[in-house]
Amino acid sequence: MKTENPDLERIINDIEPLDTSWVEKAKDRTARLVMPTRALGRLHEISEKLCAIQKTLEPSIYRKSFLVMAGDHGVVAEGVSAYPQEVTAEMIKTFLSGGAGINVLAEQVGAEIIVVDMGIIPELDLSTLPGDHNLIIRKVANGTANLARGPAMSAVEARRSILTGFQLAGDLFEKGAQILGTGDMGIGNTTPSAAIGAVLTRSNLEDMVGRGTGVDDQGLQRKRDAIQSGIQLNQPEPEDGLDVLAKIGGFEIGGIAGCILAGAYHKHPVVIDGFISTAGALIAHALCPAVTDYLFAGHCSEEPGHNLMLNYLGLQPILDLGMRLGEGTGAALAMGIMDGAVRIFKYMLTFEEAGVSNKD
Amino acid sequence: MKTENPDLERIINDIEPLDTSWVEKAKDRTARLVMPTRALGRLHEISEKLCAIQKTLEPSIYRKSFLVMAGDHGVVAEGVSAYPQEVTAEMIKTFLSGGAGINVLAEQVGAEIIVVDMGIIPELDLSTLPGDHNLIIRKVANGTANLARGPAMSAVEARRSILTGFQLAGDLFEKGAQILGTGDMGIGNTTPSAAIGAVLTRSNLEDMVGRGTGVDDQGLQRKRDAIQSGIQLNQPEPEDGLDVLAKIGGFEIGGIAGCILAGAYHKHPVVIDGFISTAGALIAHALCPAVTDYLFAGHCSEEPGHNLMLNYLGLQPILDLGMRLGEGTGAALAMGIMDGAVRIFKYMLTFEEAGVSNKD
Repeated sequence: MKTENPDLERIINDIEPLDTSWVEKAKDRTARLVMPTRALGRLHEISEKLCAIQKTLEPSIYRKSFLVMAGDHGVVAEGVSAYPQEVTAEMIKTFLSGGAGINVLAEQVGAEIIVVDMGIIPELDLSTLPGDHNLIIRKVANGTANLARGPAMSAVEARRSILTGFQLAGDLFEKGAQILGTGDMGIGNTTPSAAIGAVLTRSNLEDMVGRGTGVDDQGLQRKRDAIQSGIQLNQPEPEDGLDVLAKIGGFEIGGIAGCILAGAYHKHPVVIDGFISTAGALIAHALCPAVTDYLFAGHCSEEPGHNLMLNYLGLQPILDLGMRLGEGTGAALAMGIMDGAVRIFKYMLTFEEAGVSNKD
Repeated sequence: MKTENPDLERIINDIEPLDTSWVEKAKDRTARLVMPTRALGRLHEISEKLCAIQKTLEPSIYRKSFLVMAGDHGVVAEGVSAYPQEVTAEMIKTFLSGGAGINVLAEQVGAEIIVVDMGIIPELDLSTLPGDHNLIIRKVANGTANLARGPAMSAVEARRSILTGFQLAGDLFEKGAQILGTGDMGIGNTTPSAAIGAVLTRSNLEDMVGRGTGVDDQGLQRKRDAIQSGIQLNQPEPEDGLDVLAKIGGFEIGGIAGCILAGAYHKHPVVIDGFISTAGALIAHALCPAVTDYLFAGHCSEEPGHNLMLNYLGLQPILDLGMRLGEGTGAALAMGIMDGAVRIFKYMLTFEEAGVSNKD
């Protein structure tokens, strides 16, 4: 029996790889559908992976939820972002007002959005929010420390951020969510994400560090310098995901890693968004490589290092539209394609049902 | 004043290039939306092109229609397809029963489907269909002639197939359709499509001819031989789209070309599907290059020559999912992404509305 609130080691230990016998069963059905062999390409891979995750030939991702994880970053003091730090909290209010990119795209696919304050600097004034707001406060701390000058957080905080994401995602699954999308908000958060990417994929900084929300050449250099200092100073251990998160990570990135562990633990699909969510996936994967069995990569971001991260994880993105917003937008848009994949698998007639002649 | 049923020369003459001043106006709005500069990448290009086509900053593609054009091909006698010719008619019945791939994916985006018999060999028994069936019979002839042995159709038939598609699409626009998707059905129709692609993009056959629905090595060789014979024998004139259609085309391909001309003439967006629809677009483009201003490429097919065609037309596909079914399936799936682009353009808050700080 799984315990109510397992510790991290127990979670990792209990995650099982995908039961691929269900992939084979699903492929048998795909082969009978009224079209040339596997003529809808990636749609079949998506639906068959969903069958295996849910252990069914009637997969459903109708009930969709997003956890949009927010945090602030001490490394912003190094001048790594084009936007002021206040924007993190301002964007949380925009999410709660319904007018941000993720609101618009999540509504299109019928997904609910829960925003989580994993550790932004200000205390949000809840009295100014509507009574039914979808904000959960789970501050690990009021922003991380500056990773360029020391560890971003303590080992205890790293563990807490992961377990918080794990618990919140588990709550959503318990309430009926069938698929979870991950989103992020945090001014400066492409910096820890690129640091994590460089360390865990063993890539060099030139390839991994991009302009994020749009820093100029000087900002890009400051960003590379901050990451290089942070890695040299903190010496994160690539074999230890928790150590990497603590030394050069962020609270929202830890929360996303927890969501991903929860998907694998509870056997529900998780769709990651772009660069920051994939940094979270790298942390989760470092802790437990089997998590990718339950993961879908929503899209390939315009941020140059993202492709390297996805290749390392062995995940092929569903969309490639030059997007680089975060918030979960790429995952939301990809869920529409996944809906199509499920509909084809379930509702397309077989050759026999349609009375159509098969190949000679 | 546009006449009720203009002739082909009049249509071509009256098509106007896109009014790009609307692209600029739309870009101004995109720049004010609450995100880093153009952070949703291709979604902005899509919404801004729609603004320019519709000459509005409130674009709408809510009312979606598909014309699924069907035809049979004399060149099937050369052994170029893995499926028997009867499948064309059988698949039409499947479309009308609601159980084919295009039905499943069109329903997801709220699109209606009209199936057109542009020239299949058998006469369909309408008495066996439900009273409210969405089939229109506009047979140009009972299948084309074998393009490997002579012209696929006469010049009169080529013109008629284009004008039929033009008229049917115009009827849909008049009834309120805001966006049109093109689909195709016709056993053997990757053969004329590859022939058209090779002639109009000036590509060699090795690059343009693929396995279609899945012919084996011998079938692939027969297909290449048939196309090579057809081109050598018929000498289609690359500067004359009508001549290319007549000599090496198909009735459904001509119908699709007509749909595309209708979109540009009536100033409505048209989403093309894969290899066959893009062959239709090549014909329309040869007649009137401005049609691409009104076109969206739904996806890049697994059929190897498709990418060459799209590059030639200067169209970047929205999706790339290894699909190669046709019927309109890639266009339908792409319409979901286009819906997202429109929603972002219209419903995302501006920085000012959201009260979020912009860049330093």
